[in-house]
Amino acid sequence: MSTVLVLNGPNLGRLGSREPDVYGSANLEDLRLLLSASAPEGVTVDVRQTDDEAELIHWLYEAVDTGVAVIINPAAFTHYSYALRDAAALVTKAGLLLIEVHISNPHARETFRHTSVVSAIATGVIAGLGFDSYRLALDYVTRER
Amino acid sequence: MSTVLVLNGPNLGRLGSREPDVYGSANLEDLRLLLSASAPEGVTVDVRQTDDEAELIHWLYEAVDTGVAVIINPAAFTHYSYALRDAAALVTKAGLLLIEVHISNPHARETFRHTSVVSAIATGVIAGLGFDSYRLALDYVTRER
Amino acid sequence: MSTVLVLNGPNLGRLGSREPDVYGSANLEDLRLLLSASAPEGVTVDVRQTDDEAELIHWLYEAVDTGVAVIINPAAFTHYSYALRDAAALVTKAGLLLIEVHISNPHARETFRHTSVVSAIATGVIAGLGFDSYRLALDYVTRER
Amino acid sequence: MSTVLVLNGPNLGRLGSREPDVYGSANLEDLRLLLSASAPEGVTVDVRQTDDEAELIHWLYEAVDTGVAVIINPAAFTHYSYALRDAAALVTKAGLLLIEVHISNPHARETFRHTSVVSAIATGVIAGLGFDSYRLALDYVTRER
Amino acid sequence: MSTVLVLNGPNLGRLGSREPDVYGSANLEDLRLLLSASAPEGVTVDVRQTDDEAELIHWLYEAVDTGVAVIINPAAFTHYSYALRDAAALVTKAGLLLIEVHISNPHARETFRHTSVVSAIATGVIAGLGFDSYRLALDYVTRER
Amino acid sequence: MSTVLVLNGPNLGRLGSREPDVYGSANLEDLRLLLSASAPEGVTVDVRQTDDEAELIHWLYEAVDTGVAVIINPAAFTHYSYALRDAAALVTKAGLLLIEVHISNPHARETFRHTSVVSAIATGVIAGLGFDSYRLALDYVTRER
Amino acid sequence: MSTVLVLNGPNLGRLGSREPDVYGSANLEDLRLLLSASAPEGVTVDVRQTDDEAELIHWLYEAVDTGVAVIINPAAFTHYSYALRDAAALVTKAGLLLIEVHISNPHARETFRHTSVVSAIATGVIAGLGFDSYRLALDYVTRER
Amino acid sequence: MSTVLVLNGPNLGRLGSREPDVYGSANLEDLRLLLSASAPEGVTVDVRQTDDEAELIHWLYEAVDTGVAVIINPAAFTHYSYALRDAAALVTKAGLLLIEVHISNPHARETFRHTSVVSAIATGVIAGLGFDSYRLALDYVTRER
Amino acid sequence: MSTVLVLNGPNLGRLGSREPDVYGSANLEDLRLLLSASAPEGVTVDVRQTDDEAELIHWLYEAVDTGVAVIINPAAFTHYSYALRDAAALVTKAGLLLIEVHISNPHARETFRHTSVVSAIATGVIAGLGFDSYRLALDYVTRER
Amino acid sequence: MSTVLVLNGPNLGRLGSREPDVYGSANLEDLRLLLSASAPEGVTVDVRQTDDEAELIHWLYEAVDTGVAVIINPAAFTHYSYALRDAAALVTKAGLLLIEVHISNPHARETFRHTSVVSAIATGVIAGLGFDSYRLALDYVTRER
Amino acid sequence: MSTVLVLNGPNLGRLGSREPDVYGSANLEDLRLLLSASAPEGVTVDVRQTDDEAELIHWLYEAVDTGVAVIINPAAFTHYSYALRDAAALVTKAGLLLIEVHISNPHARETFRHTSVVSAIATGVIAGLGFDSYRLALDYVTRER
Amino acid sequence: MSTVLVLNGPNLGRLGSREPDVYGSANLEDLRLLLSASAPEGVTVDVRQTDDEAELIHWLYEAVDTGVAVIINPAAFTHYSYALRDAAALVTKAGLLLIEVHISNPHARETFRHTSVVSAIATGVIAGLGFDSYRLALDYVTRER
Repeated sequence: MSTVLVLNGPNLGRLGSREPDVYGSANLEDLRLLLSASAPEGVTVDVRQTDDEAELIHWLYEAVDTGVAVIINPAAFTHYSYALRDAAALVTKAGLLLIEVHISNPHARETFRHTSVVSAIATGVIAGLGFDSYRLALDYVTRER
Repeated sequence: MSTVLVLNGPNLGRLGSREPDVYGSANLEDLRLLLSASAPEGVTVDVRQTDDEAELIHWLYEAVDTGVAVIINPAAFTHYSYALRDAAALVTKAGLLLIEVHISNPHARETFRHTSVVSAIATGVIAGLGFDSYRLALDYVTRER
Repeated sequence: MSTVLVLNGPNLGRLGSREPDVYGSANLEDLRLLLSASAPEGVTVDVRQTDDEAELIHWLYEAVDTGVAVIINPAAFTHYSYALRDAAALVTKAGLLLIEVHISNPHARETFRHTSVVSAIATGVIAGLGFDSYRLALDYVTRER
Repeated sequence: MSTVLVLNGPNLGRLGSREPDVYGSANLEDLRLLLSASAPEGVTVDVRQTDDEAELIHWLYEAVDTGVAVIINPAAFTHYSYALRDAAALVTKAGLLLIEVHISNPHARETFRHTSVVSAIATGVIAGLGFDSYRLALDYVTRER
Repeated sequence: MSTVLVLNGPNLGRLGSREPDVYGSANLEDLRLLLSASAPEGVTVDVRQTDDEAELIHWLYEAVDTGVAVIINPAAFTHYSYALRDAAALVTKAGLLLIEVHISNPHARETFRHTSVVSAIATGVIAGLGFDSYRLALDYVTRER
Repeated sequence: MSTVLVLNGPNLGRLGSREPDVYGSANLEDLRLLLSASAPEGVTVDVRQTDDEAELIHWLYEAVDTGVAVIINPAAFTHYSYALRDAAALVTKAGLLLIEVHISNPHARETFRHTSVVSAIATGVIAGLGFDSYRLALDYVTRER
Repeated sequence: MSTVLVLNGPNLGRLGSREPDVYGSANLEDLRLLLSASAPEGVTVDVRQTDDEAELIHWLYEAVDTGVAVIINPAAFTHYSYALRDAAALVTKAGLLLIEVHISNPHARETFRHTSVVSAIATGVIAGLGFDSYRLALDYVTRER
Repeated sequence: MSTVLVLNGPNLGRLGSREPDVYGSANLEDLRLLLSASAPEGVTVDVRQTDDEAELIHWLYEAVDTGVAVIINPAAFTHYSYALRDAAALVTKAGLLLIEVHISNPHARETFRHTSVVSAIATGVIAGLGFDSYRLALDYVTRER
Repeated sequence: MSTVLVLNGPNLGRLGSREPDVYGSANLEDLRLLLSASAPEGVTVDVRQTDDEAELIHWLYEAVDTGVAVIINPAAFTHYSYALRDAAALVTKAGLLLIEVHISNPHARETFRHTSVVSAIATGVIAGLGFDSYRLALDYVTRER
Repeated sequence: MSTVLVLNGPNLGRLGSREPDVYGSANLEDLRLLLSASAPEGVTVDVRQTDDEAELIHWLYEAVDTGVAVIINPAAFTHYSYALRDAAALVTKAGLLLIEVHISNPHARETFRHTSVVSAIATGVIAGLGFDSYRLALDYVTRER
Repeated sequence: MSTVLVLNGPNLGRLGSREPDVYGSANLEDLRLLLSASAPEGVTVDVRQTDDEAELIHWLYEAVDTGVAVIINPAAFTHYSYALRDAAALVTKAGLLLIEVHISNPHARETFRHTSVVSAIATGVIAGLGFDSYRLALDYVTRER
Repeated sequence: MSTVLVLNGPNLGRLGSREPDVYGSANLEDLRLLLSASAPEGVTVDVRQTDDEAELIHWLYEAVDTGVAVIINPAAFTHYSYALRDAAALVTKAGLLLIEVHISNPHARETFRHTSVVSAIATGVIAGLGFDSYRLALDYVTRER
C-alpha cells in the first residue's frame, strides 16, 4: 500500500471562495474526493494544505524519509521561496518524483507569476487544467514503471 | 459595534527600540493607545503584530470572514511576500477596505524598499507620516460612506 | 491664520469629466468645498491647478517663501519631472511639510505610473483614497505638533 | 463646416531651417498650404505649433470641448511627456480621432526616439512619410464613416 | 468519432536519435502507438511533425476549421515564433482546447528555454514527463465534460 | 501600367474570422476590393498573403527585381524575423518605397508587439487605422513625385 | 561687440538659498558679476534664468538666429528634456558653440543625475567646479580661434 | 561565562544527508562538537537550526536582548528574506557582532545564490570553507578586543 | 571521396547585388568556384542556399545522416532561430564538424547582429573575412587529423 | 614654486597620429608647450603619459605625497579601472584637486564611453574642448583661492 | 618548512594612510607582524603588495609552481580583472587553496563593489573582519587536513 | 621579407599546463613551430606573449609603426580592456589587418566570455579551432591580395 503526498501552499485553503472565476468553486475537500476516486487501488492520496513555509518544507522531508512521491502546488511560494526549492530538491535528488502543479495558467496572469523558482528542480510541471492538473499528476506518479 | 484590524508585520514588535531615528521611540502599545483614542465611538481597534507570514495571512482571512476593514503595515514582507499579497487580495476582492501603511517613507530609503508587491491590490497606501499613517487610515476606513 | 497650499498638476483641471470611472465625477470645485469644510478653524486652504510645470514650480517657491505646508498631486509630472522634484525638495529641506497625494492608486494602473520621481523627497505619500487622499493630508499638515 | 486640429510640438516651428536633411526644407507655412489644398470641402485645417507643453495640452482640451479630430506631431514630447499622453487620452476616450504623426521615421534615428509614450492611446500612428504623414492623417480623419 | 491533433515542431522528427539522454530513445512512431493505445474508444489520434513554421500554423487552422482539440509540442518555436502564437490563439479563442507539451523540463535546461511565447494563450502546459506529457494531455482533452 | 505589391504575413489569411473585435470582420478579399477601388488609374494592386517566411522574402525580391513599391503587413514576423528585415532592406536600399502597415495599433496591445525589427529600414509606418492603413499607404506610394 | 548667452534652467533662480552645501551661497547676481568681470573686452555676457522649458528653448533659437555662443546649465532638464536637447542641437548644428555646465558634480550625486540627454549634442561639458564651470566655459567660447 | 549564538536557516537540519557532495557528510551534531571543541574557555556555543523564518528572527531578538554575538548561516533565506535582514540589522546596530557564514561557496553555484540580502548589514562574511566557516567566525567573535 | 556541405541562410542568394559595400560584388557562383578551387583533391564542396528555415534544417539532418562536415552561414537566422540551433546541435553532438561563418563582421554592425544563438553549439566561428571566411573553414574541416 | 601633475592614460602617447579627425593633429609635446605657456608664473606643469595602469596609480600617490593638484585624462581606463578610481580617490580625500579631462566628448561617441568610473570621486570634469580641456583645468587648479 | 603567499592588490600599499575610517590605521607592515605571529611553527608567511595586474598574476603562477596556498586581497581588481581570475583559477585547479579576503565588507559599500569576478573560482571568501580576514584565512590554509 | 605579429594575452604563457581539457596540451613553443611551418616563404612569424596590458598595447604600436599585420589572442583582456581596444583600433585604422583569435569557443563557456570589447574594431574573428585559429588567421593575412 503506497501513499502520494499532495501538498498545497498558501491561500489554497480558501479554494472555492477565493476568486471563483480563476480557481473555480470547488474546494480542497472536492479535490480530496476527486483524487481518491482517481487513485489506483492500493494508493492512498494524502491531501494537505498550509500557509506556513516551514510546515510545507517539513512535509517534503517526510516524503524523503518515507520515500513517497509528491504533487505540490506551491501557490505564491512558487515565485520567491528558495527555501522551498531547496527542500523540494531533496525529494528529486533522492530519486523520488515531484510534480509541480497549478490550477490556473500562471503565464496568462500577472508577470510575477511567470517566474517559478521551483520548476528547475521538479520532475515536471502541469498547469492550467484546474483540478485535472492534480489528477493527471497523480496518474503519472502512480503509473507502473 | 464594528472592528478594524490593524496588522503589523515582521520586526514591528521591536518598535521603540529599533532604529529610533527612523521609526521614533514610541512602541506598539503607544500605537494602540493612539488609535483607540482616535477611533470613532463604537469602533474597536484591534492592533496585532507578528513576525510569522502564515499568521499574518490567517488574520487577513479573519477579516474576510468577519467582514472588517484592514490596516496593514507589511514591513519587510512588503518587498517579497506574494503569499501575503494573494491573501490581501482576498480582502479587497470581498469588497472590504485594506490600507497599506508605512511609518517611514520607503522611497527615501534603500532601493529594495521602493518596490511593494502588495500596493497593486490595496485600496490605498499611506506612507511616511509616522503613527499618523495608521491614524489617517483609521479615519478613512471608519468614515461613513 | 495659516494657509495650506493644495497644488494640482496637469489634466486635473478636467476632473469630473476625465475618466469618471477612475477619478470619480467630482471636480476641483468639489475638492475645494470638501477641503474648506474639513479644514480646522483658522486654516485657509488654497486649491490651485495648472498644466504648466514652471507655474507649479513657482507655487512651490511661494510655499518656501511664506513658510506654508504643501499638499501636491503632481499627476503625470510624478513620473518624469525632475525639475518639480528639485523644487519640491526646496520645501522639505526648508523644514516644511509636503505630502504627495494621488486620487487613484498608481500601482494598480499602467507600469509607468509605478515610478515616482517625487516620493523620495516628500514628507509622505497618500494614494488611492479619492479626494480623501487630500483630506487626510490636510488633517496631517494642520495637526498641532 | 468642421475643423481638424493639426498640432505640432517643440522645435517644429523651426522646420525648414532645422536639419533639412532630416526634415526637408519646407516649413510650417508650406504644411498649412498643403493641408488646406488637401482638405475636403467644408473642412478647415487649423495648423498650430508650440514649444510649450501646457499650451499643447490646452489645445487637446479644446479638441475635446469642440469635438474635433486631432492630428498631432508631439516631436520630442513623444518620448517623455506623460502629461501630454494623459491629455491625448482624453481625446480618444471622448470617442474622437487622434492620429500621432512624425515627419521622419523615429525608428531609423537615435534609440531614445524609438519609444513613444503617446502611441498606446492614439487611434493610430503615421511616421516617416514627410508632410504626407499629415496629409494621409487628414484624409483618414475627414473620411465619411 | 472525434479526432485529436497532436502536433510536433522542429527537430522532433529526429526523436529517438536526437540526444537520447534528454529525450529518450523512443521515436515518433512509438509516440503514435502509445497515444493510440491510450485514446478512449472513438477517438482518433493524429500525430504529425514538421520543421516548417507555416505548415504547423496551417495544421492549427485545420483544428479551428474542424473543431478538434490540439496537443502541441512547439519545440524550439516555443521560444520565438509569435506567428505560431497568433495561430494557436485562434484555437483557444474558438473555444477549443490547446495543450502545450514538452518532453523534457525546459526550466532545467538553458536559459533561453525558460521563456515560452505560446504558454500565455494555451489552455494549459504539461512539461518534463517524457511521452507521458502527451498521454496526460490526451487524457485531459478527451475527458467527458 | 505600374503595380504595387501588398504583402501580408502570417495569420492574415484568417482576417474576418480572427478576433473580429481587433481586426474587424472584413477579409482579404474585401481588402483587395477596397484597394482596387482606391488605386489611381493605371495602377494594379497585387494583394498577397502567406504564412511562410521564405515566400514573403521571395515576394520582396520580386519587388526589387521589377522595381515596384511594397506595402507590407508583416504581422507576427514584425517582432522577430530579421530574415524579413534583411529582405525588406533590399527594397529600400534599391530606392524603392516600402511602407510597413498594421491594422490594429500594436502599441495598444501586448508588450511584445511594441517592438518592430522592420521599422528601422522601412520608408515609413502606418498603424491602427484598419484597412485604411493600407489605403493611405497606397495613396502615398502611387502619388506623383 | 559680441554676446554670449548664459542660460540657466529650473530652480537655479533659487541659487544662494537652495542647498548652500551643494551649490554655495552665491546667487545668480553674483554669477553675473563674476562673468562680467571675467569677460574679455567687447564681450557682453547675458545671464538669464527660467523654470520654463519653452522659454529656455526660445533662448536657444535666439542664439541660432543671432549667431552667438551658448553656455547652458540645464539643471534638472538635463535628465529628461529631449525638447531641450533638440533645440540645443540646432545651436551646434549651426556651427555655434554650446557648452553644458554644472555647478556641482552630477556623478557624485543621485543616480538619476548621472544621465544627461543633452551632453551628446553639446560641444563640451564642464561640471563640478562651482561658478568656475561657467567662467571657464566663457573663457573657451570667447577665445580667438 | 559568555555565549555565542550559532543560527542555521532552512534545510540545514538535513546536513549530512543533503547533497553530501556539496555540503559534506557531517551533520549539525558534528558541527556542535567541532564548535564546542574550538570555543575558548568560558564560552558556550549555542547551535540551533530552524526552517521557520519567524523563529530565526526571534533568535536574533534574543541576541539583541542578551547582548551576545551571532554566527548565522541563513541558507536559502539569504536570497530573499528582507524580514531576516531587518532583524539582523537590529543586532549590528546594537553594536553586536553578526557574521554571515556559508558552508559552500555561493558564487560557485546557481546565479540566484550570488545575491545576499543580508551581507550589507553583517559585520562580515565567511563562505566556502565547510564547517571551518563557522569555526573561524567563532574565533573572530570570541577574540579579546 | 568525401563531401563538405556549405549552407547559406536567408538573403544570401542575393549576394553580389545586396549591399555590395558590405558583402562585396561576388555572388554565390563565385563562392562555389573559389571553394572548388580551394578544396583538396577528393573533396566535393556542395554549396547551397535557402531562405527557408525548414529546408536549412533538413540539410543539417542530411549532414548527420551522411556524416559530413558543415560550413554554415546562417545569415539573419543567426539571431533568432532556435530551431536552427537545435538542428545544428545534432551535427556537433554526432561528432561532426560545424563551422559558423560570416562574410562581414557582425560585431561592427547593428546591435542585434552581436548575438548568435548558434555559436554556443558550433565547433568554431570565423567572421569578417569575406569569402575567405568560408575558404578557411573549408581548410579546417578538410585537414587530416 | 608649485607644480601641477598632468597625467595621461593609455594611447594618448599616440596623439597627433591617432584618429586626427577625433583628437586633432597636435601631439603631447604640443600640449606641454600650450600648458607651459598658459601656466601662471611660478607654476610648473609636469605633463606625463603612460599606458601602464600601475604607473598611473603611482603618479597619483606622488601627488598625494607632494600635495599637488592633478589634471588627469584617464583615456580608456575611464571606463573600467576601479584601481585607478581608488587611487584618484586618495587625491581628493587628501583635500587636493583632481580634474578629469577628455579631449573629445565621450557622450558623442560609442555607448561604452558614456560611463566613467572615475567621475564620481573627481573634483570636476571637463570634456570635449580639445587641448582647452586641459588648459581650463589648469586655470582652475592654479587660481588663488 | 612551508610557505603561504599573502598577495595584496592595488592601493593596499597605502594602507594606514588610505581612508583610515574604512581600512583602519594599521599598515602592511603591521599585517606582516600579525600574520607572522599567528602562523603555526614551520610556516613562513610571505606578504606582498603590487599595483600591477601582471605582477599579481605572476605571483599566482609562482604559487602553482611551488605548490603553496594563497591568500589574496585583489582590492579593486576584484571587480573587473578577468585576467586575474583566470590566473587564480590555475591555483585552485591545481588543487591548491586560494582564499579571497577583504578588509572591509564590500556589500556595505558602493554597488560596483558588490560584484567579484574572482569569488566563483576561489576556495572561499572572508570579508569585513579587518586584518582578521587574513588571520582567519591563514588559520584555514595552514590547518592539518 | 615581411613579418606577422602573433600576440598573446594574459595566462597564455601557461598553455600546455593550463586546463588541458579546454586548451589542449600543446604550448606556445608548439604554436611557434606550427606557424613557422605554415607560413609562406618570405614571411616571418613573430609569436609573443605577455600578461601585461601595457606591453601588449606597445606591441600593437609596433605593428602600426612597421606596417605589419597582427593576429591577436587577447585572452581575458577580451572582456574588459578598452585600452587594448583603442590600441587595436590604431592598427585597423592604419589600414592594416588585425585578426582576433581564440583557441576555445568563448560562446560555449561562461557568460562573461560571450562579450568581446575588441571584436567591433577587428578585421575579423576566428574562434574555437584550437591552434588552427591562428594558422587560418596567418593564411588570411599572408595571402596575396
